[in-house]
Amino acid sequence: MSSADGVSPLDGASGAPSLQRILRRPAEPGMALAQIETPALLVDLPALDRNIARLAAYVQSQSPGVRLRPHAKTHKSPDVARRQIAAGAVGVCCQTVGEAEAMAAAGIADILLSNQIAGAGKAARLAAIAGQSRLSVCVDDPAQVALLSEAALAAGVTIHILVELDVGGARCGVQSAEAARALAELVQSTPGLGFGGLQAYHGRAQHMRKPQERKAAIERAILLAGEAAAKIRAAGIACDTVTGAGTGSFEFEAASALYTELQCGSYVFMDADYARNERDDTTAMPRFEQALTVLTTVISTPLPDRAVCDAGLKAMSLDSGPPSLQLHPGLDYAGVSDEHSTLTMHAPATLRVGQAIHLVPGHCDPTVAMHDWIIVHDGKRVLDVWPVTRGW
Amino acid sequence: MSSADGVSPLDGASGAPSLQRILRRPAEPGMALAQIETPALLVDLPALDRNIARLAAYVQSQSPGVRLRPHAKTHKSPDVARRQIAAGAVGVCCQTVGEAEAMAAAGIADILLSNQIAGAGKAARLAAIAGQSRLSVCVDDPAQVALLSEAALAAGVTIHILVELDVGGARCGVQSAEAARALAELVQSTPGLGFGGLQAYHGRAQHMRKPQERKAAIERAILLAGEAAAKIRAAGIACDTVTGAGTGSFEFEAASALYTELQCGSYVFMDADYARNERDDTTAMPRFEQALTVLTTVISTPLPDRAVCDAGLKAMSLDSGPPSLQLHPGLDYAGVSDEHSTLTMHAPATLRVGQAIHLVPGHCDPTVAMHDWIIVHDGKRVLDVWPVTRGW
Repeated sequence: MSSADGVSPLDGASGAPSLQRILRRPAEPGMALAQIETPALLVDLPALDRNIARLAAYVQSQSPGVRLRPHAKTHKSPDVARRQIAAGAVGVCCQTVGEAEAMAAAGIADILLSNQIAGAGKAARLAAIAGQSRLSVCVDDPAQVALLSEAALAAGVTIHILVELDVGGARCGVQSAEAARALAELVQSTPGLGFGGLQAYHGRAQHMRKPQERKAAIERAILLAGEAAAKIRAAGIACDTVTGAGTGSFEFEAASALYTELQCGSYVFMDADYARNERDDTTAMPRFEQALTVLTTVISTPLPDRAVCDAGLKAMSLDSGPPSLQLHPGLDYAGVSDEHSTLTMHAPATLRVGQAIHLVPGHCDPTVAMHDWIIVHDGKRVLDVWPVTRGW
Repeated sequence: MSSADGVSPLDGASGAPSLQRILRRPAEPGMALAQIETPALLVDLPALDRNIARLAAYVQSQSPGVRLRPHAKTHKSPDVARRQIAAGAVGVCCQTVGEAEAMAAAGIADILLSNQIAGAGKAARLAAIAGQSRLSVCVDDPAQVALLSEAALAAGVTIHILVELDVGGARCGVQSAEAARALAELVQSTPGLGFGGLQAYHGRAQHMRKPQERKAAIERAILLAGEAAAKIRAAGIACDTVTGAGTGSFEFEAASALYTELQCGSYVFMDADYARNERDDTTAMPRFEQALTVLTTVISTPLPDRAVCDAGLKAMSLDSGPPSLQLHPGLDYAGVSDEHSTLTMHAPATLRVGQAIHLVPGHCDPTVAMHDWIIVHDGKRVLDVWPVTRGW
């Protein structure tokens, strides 16, 4: 029996005994796709590399000088991050301290935690990362400034700080240019910290379906971020970085002459929800390919038109709608439970027990986070198996 | 820096070098709850033990002779399974081969995979489990019978087989008593396999809100399962086990004089969705407590009525609705994104950055599957940290 979930007593980093877990990888390079046990998370490597190259080429040609800092919350994979950096990215964004630790351990030299943190433990972990890599983090509250300063001083490092401005996302971020200026001044005068600029990400704009809706939302974000940057600069503080943008909107931030960095994440994998965004084909916007699938197997065909396969709510996130069956014309997605998807066959008995199905996830980021490994392939064989960062 | 996501080259089970991953646990016994880094999955141990004792007592008093075989897909935890067995359960159900491997490795002697499988690899893994524990698995197709027979013969073991009947779940399962009899006869005559009885679980009945709706659905399931058992027995085949039932309906299967086993899973943790089921207080049905929470921390309070905390779609499943704030009167759940929940405060500024929030997940099973560890506590301190089975 494989000890796929073995738990072994090993020595912890501290030297004290600590219960640890060993996860074995589910496939090996050279294996045929048909041999992979399911459900499994698959990435088509040629498609991934084309997506990386297309965004890099677009930014370089359309807005030279704007930096690309892809969001690693999409892939949680140092292996993907290294390919993005090899194509010209300046570093990565992370959304959790655990992701930032994994990126720093893999040698990524420039990391932005595009999020707020709380708690002395997480501040100390960030300061430890700042001893290895250039580390920036967002704040929108003086309490975070105090916490980060204390940790930076204790570790003898500098933590770079971006003030987050709410530019329409309605989540975190200060609510006015004046508040941004006040917080920038506080950061500027706080030991252990360096003020870096503005985080101005508009998450809600990414999935607006029409290009003109996304454009209008980002025009408003540019206005708000521009006002805040001007206020900060008027106070005598350099505001070198204005960072934001995602896969749905980056063309507008890239052309703004304000944003200096783009944080696109999903473009690298794509998903069924982003595929529903309408395009304006009069622009040079790159087309990204679907590189991510969940491989599943038919385990039951109880009725002539019903097939049940072995990937459900624990193998893919349905928060942005069900997975797409675009790779399997003739099938409809009929229902999901914890470990099952139910499919309807247009023509009776077209599927048998044991057949493989490639589902295109509705939402890539939370789907990837459910898995321990990404199986990388070329459509025929396994090329590599990459770990997915676990924990926070 | 903690190597929370370390990847080390270690020797695989085969002797060949294999990339493996070590997951360090996020808390230690004795730690105060306030010290736990978030998001984290917490279980209140006294509440868990009361839930286990209440169901065991109910079954023993109301339907002596009916066996309890709790579903381990809820907890994916050998530690929880051992407590259920200590309280009288005969073994566990699993939904994946990976869960069954983890339970067998932990010494659970009687395991039912309440699901179909496909593929020679999974059949071989099941046969390996059958060399350690009593192992039963469901079939609804002759293809599965052939696969399991081959694996059992190769390993020199007996795999026990239940024929699954669709009693209203509209997922897997044969569609008639006659089809159940035919498949039972095939199993009976196939080497390496032993026919064990019927799987007759009605998943859809579990979340019908009114007790009389659940009762009517299970009455229909009892009728169908009774017909199938009679057909099988009329063919001269013993049908010792009729197994099914869940947290929403078990009182009806327990009282049926047909079902011999109950597969309740969620009762051990409970969740916000099960809490919406209406009760009939004229019965002796036990009340189960909410033992499972997702601990999260406020990381931002950008408006007087808005707080943002650090648990989102990657820390809890929203498939059955948002988490409940029943432990925090005065807060409403306003929105979710990958790593954030947005809360609305009824009274301005009642939360500050750094405060802890206990969210009650909408759906326990897929929420647990997102985590690597369950932090077990008594309301004040960490008592233990239990691994969650990873992989399939």
